[in-house]
Amino acid sequence: VFLATPAETSLERVPQLLAQGTRVIDLSGAFRLKDAGLYARYYGWEHRRAGLLGQAVYGLPELFRRGMENAQLVANPGCYATAVALALAPLLAQGLLDEGALVADAASGVTGAGRKATEEYSFAELADDFRAYRTLRHQHTPEIQQTLAAVEPGKPARPLTFTPHLLPVRRGILATCYARLRRGASAADLTGALDVLARSEPFIQAVPSPDQVSLRAVVGTNRVQLAAAVDETGSDPGRVVIVAALDNLLKGAAGQAVQNLNLMLGLPETLGLEHLQPFAP
Amino acid sequence: VFLATPAETSLERVPQLLAQGTRVIDLSGAFRLKDAGLYARYYGWEHRRAGLLGQAVYGLPELFRRGMENAQLVANPGCYATAVALALAPLLAQGLLDEGALVADAASGVTGAGRKATEEYSFAELADDFRAYRTLRHQHTPEIQQTLAAVEPGKPARPLTFTPHLLPVRRGILATCYARLRRGASAADLTGALDVLARSEPFIQAVPSPDQVSLRAVVGTNRVQLAAAVDETGSDPGRVVIVAALDNLLKGAAGQAVQNLNLMLGLPETLGLEHLQPFAP
Amino acid sequence: VFLATPAETSLERVPQLLAQGTRVIDLSGAFRLKDAGLYARYYGWEHRRAGLLGQAVYGLPELFRRGMENAQLVANPGCYATAVALALAPLLAQGLLDEGALVADAASGVTGAGRKATEEYSFAELADDFRAYRTLRHQHTPEIQQTLAAVEPGKPARPLTFTPHLLPVRRGILATCYARLRRGASAADLTGALDVLARSEPFIQAVPSPDQVSLRAVVGTNRVQLAAAVDETGSDPGRVVIVAALDNLLKGAAGQAVQNLNLMLGLPETLGLEHLQPFAP
Amino acid sequence: VFLATPAETSLERVPQLLAQGTRVIDLSGAFRLKDAGLYARYYGWEHRRAGLLGQAVYGLPELFRRGMENAQLVANPGCYATAVALALAPLLAQGLLDEGALVADAASGVTGAGRKATEEYSFAELADDFRAYRTLRHQHTPEIQQTLAAVEPGKPARPLTFTPHLLPVRRGILATCYARLRRGASAADLTGALDVLARSEPFIQAVPSPDQVSLRAVVGTNRVQLAAAVDETGSDPGRVVIVAALDNLLKGAAGQAVQNLNLMLGLPETLGLEHLQPFAP
Repeated sequence: VFLATPAETSLERVPQLLAQGTRVIDLSGAFRLKDAGLYARYYGWEHRRAGLLGQAVYGLPELFRRGMENAQLVANPGCYATAVALALAPLLAQGLLDEGALVADAASGVTGAGRKATEEYSFAELADDFRAYRTLRHQHTPEIQQTLAAVEPGKPARPLTFTPHLLPVRRGILATCYARLRRGASAADLTGALDVLARSEPFIQAVPSPDQVSLRAVVGTNRVQLAAAVDETGSDPGRVVIVAALDNLLKGAAGQAVQNLNLMLGLPETLGLEHLQPFAP
Repeated sequence: VFLATPAETSLERVPQLLAQGTRVIDLSGAFRLKDAGLYARYYGWEHRRAGLLGQAVYGLPELFRRGMENAQLVANPGCYATAVALALAPLLAQGLLDEGALVADAASGVTGAGRKATEEYSFAELADDFRAYRTLRHQHTPEIQQTLAAVEPGKPARPLTFTPHLLPVRRGILATCYARLRRGASAADLTGALDVLARSEPFIQAVPSPDQVSLRAVVGTNRVQLAAAVDETGSDPGRVVIVAALDNLLKGAAGQAVQNLNLMLGLPETLGLEHLQPFAP
Repeated sequence: VFLATPAETSLERVPQLLAQGTRVIDLSGAFRLKDAGLYARYYGWEHRRAGLLGQAVYGLPELFRRGMENAQLVANPGCYATAVALALAPLLAQGLLDEGALVADAASGVTGAGRKATEEYSFAELADDFRAYRTLRHQHTPEIQQTLAAVEPGKPARPLTFTPHLLPVRRGILATCYARLRRGASAADLTGALDVLARSEPFIQAVPSPDQVSLRAVVGTNRVQLAAAVDETGSDPGRVVIVAALDNLLKGAAGQAVQNLNLMLGLPETLGLEHLQPFAP
Repeated sequence: VFLATPAETSLERVPQLLAQGTRVIDLSGAFRLKDAGLYARYYGWEHRRAGLLGQAVYGLPELFRRGMENAQLVANPGCYATAVALALAPLLAQGLLDEGALVADAASGVTGAGRKATEEYSFAELADDFRAYRTLRHQHTPEIQQTLAAVEPGKPARPLTFTPHLLPVRRGILATCYARLRRGASAADLTGALDVLARSEPFIQAVPSPDQVSLRAVVGTNRVQLAAAVDETGSDPGRVVIVAALDNLLKGAAGQAVQNLNLMLGLPETLGLEHLQPFAP
């Protein structure tokens, strides 16, 4: 069963479904965090089913594919969390980024907030505007931090600041992430790491420059576009900028859920997803 | 004379006008940087009139008002540079930010690039899209760095990374800036500093939260909206996020030029600018 | 008192205010139609205050300015109705249009529907779309027909078809109207009539070609742009096309209400309205 | 060979290709009109290859499928022409519309004009705007008139007025067409005719009301949506409104070209087109 329900509803339904022996892919945030204590701060309620958090597999196949085949409960990642984690985790895993704080500055189309009958999400309010929201308190922040910590086992979680913005477009997320290059590593190491990843991952596309990553190349597909650049002799030597883009409704939600389903059932991972084409090539 | 010409044209015309005894407000980048050596890197040409760089007053009145009354040549700031400098300089000047690198992640409406008959700026290419451009090499980067250094005299220029993005809207810039709080300073110090500034500056509006800063509150006006927040006990304690918004055609260009004109002529600084209202209140 | 309330609320409040001796400008449709019987068909309810319909002055100053000075109740016109009436009535009044049916095909920005917290008016539903709505049953149809009949006294009301469409923009209405040229009249008569009108009316601007009428020239102002063209030897000789544009929030609502207020109080008609400038010149 | 070239280029290349025995689908207007004399008026040049006009099959399969199998030269219809012809021709062919003039008021996304590096088509000019263009002189007018005449053989061509407008969206055309019901015919006859058509035509979808026809239901597909309504007892009894929508890049251009290719080669008509899905269902 796919649950595309509010977290509060998932909290009720997931245990019932699991008790029946039904495998579940939950698209809400209800089972994404391992640390139950974070729910009060970021979601506004105490987690009543904390026992299930350890059991849930975080459904980001590019990082956690191995656990999926036997998973009873998959917590499908948030759309921002997918973009930022796929921008940073591969480089962290390769040891290419210096220790120190990370910044993820991201912008999402309006459907990232779901389908809402509110004045706030009306055309008249959103058109021609751009703004940050939930600054320093968005619930995807600990989700991203947890994922990044998982690829650097044995180290403390890195400080992370995540700022989401609301774009006047329907679909698509673009995340611009800031880190520092590890001493001894080079720009070629970064782009090489992304190229290697792209060759083995069907839904990751590496492009040479952050300027080439765009919503239009990914909206309508299950693809993530990635690019990294290093400031070598400019205004902040050692600075790394990594940009990621994806469609919040596909790789950031339903497409990723299908990808997870395929893995849970032992089907080809790209089944039903490979023919999706960008709307505006 | 106002020059709203390409930098190459301003390089020719400004010396001629000055030689005639005409005072000039130049909206191009030709005379904004003090260090002539940066032009090759960021503008692509050697500066042939480097002797005038020292004479030009950088026309950001909130920081450099004093020099304007007698200025013969005012270099009107770039739109991004105005937004980022007004976000960061007041807090730097108050000593509220820890030493260390700064990040400015900004997004601009399409008119920020001027009026261009290119496929790249056509509606069909830009609508529904969002992307970074000139990553790690935008010419406003050294301009911002120079302004920030000016408010911390005696210290080395801080490392700065600036990433501009292109928004599918006509007007407006929003900059989300990242710094760290100086040990001993508090969130109240930050918001207090912005409030004090807003009380004395006619075109600066401080709002309580970064989430309240938006293009729609400033487009159509000469106003800059500012807000700052501190991560106190979250995912990156000590992190400061400051958001600024302005209309790239007004406070980021023509409006600021009029503000500078008023100062050059000893007129009330807000003359001709105070009745401007946001398009979408 | 200005009432910008639902028609049902105006029906309650207007009689109370008039009874207190308060003069009212009502922006709803509650008192716009003279024929009470039309309310059931177009508004869905029987008119309980039909006695006031005769007393209300229809607040379209360019056509009915004379009655305004002593009016106790002004029914401020609908936004579509203003655009279509000002496109057609001046030419009808001059006897330049052949008898026969009229068509008004119009498109409005989203604010024409007011501020609504509905899924239907959300950004995600409206962006990138265009559609007709209330085809053959929009409540402004009898309002337009009534106005046009008023400038051809003694003749039966002309058949009129009005089709509104919803544009993915915030503000502005453009109406493209179809009629036939009276035998003996010429294209020069049409454009001459619009030019004469524009010279005497402060808020009417006549432009040479329908292709020059656009939302961007009027949004942000209380202005109506008008142009007419005749098919002389093409695919439908004698066809007249008249295009009108206005800002639905100003000349189509609040601006017109202020214009009416000025007339009711004997003030200069343009007071408070003349400085309004287009947002995107 | 598909030619997606300016008409002037097609005029050169088509005869060369035909002389080589190559079958051609030409997406320009160069061979669409049967009456060579119309080119001077609507295209601005004398037709130098008028001898080929009689040979070209007009590639609107729903009306002219029969000639396609042996066609050497297919003139692929214009995007507006496809929408308007499919709105009106089926009802004319069934004898359901009264004699008399027709009006087609249509709006197109920006890609309808092709890919152009002009200031006129820049984002800054088109966003938030709406306007008519080529009023009473658009080159699709005689193309539509010719198609409609072909389904009423033996009758004179009907007067037709066509007004295109430019929408601030990338893709999609919506045409609102005005006619009169033939005495004795009913609304049910109209909707019945469209339903019958939709059952036999793979790319035509009939919906109950003109209000349900929208860009979003067709963009991304080779589909045409159609609906008709009759004013029975309202402000213009007997008025018929028919609304059609299609994607100007697919059914209005490339999709229709593939449909024609399939017919020319005796392949299933929907080959390569049936899996296309709307972008925003």
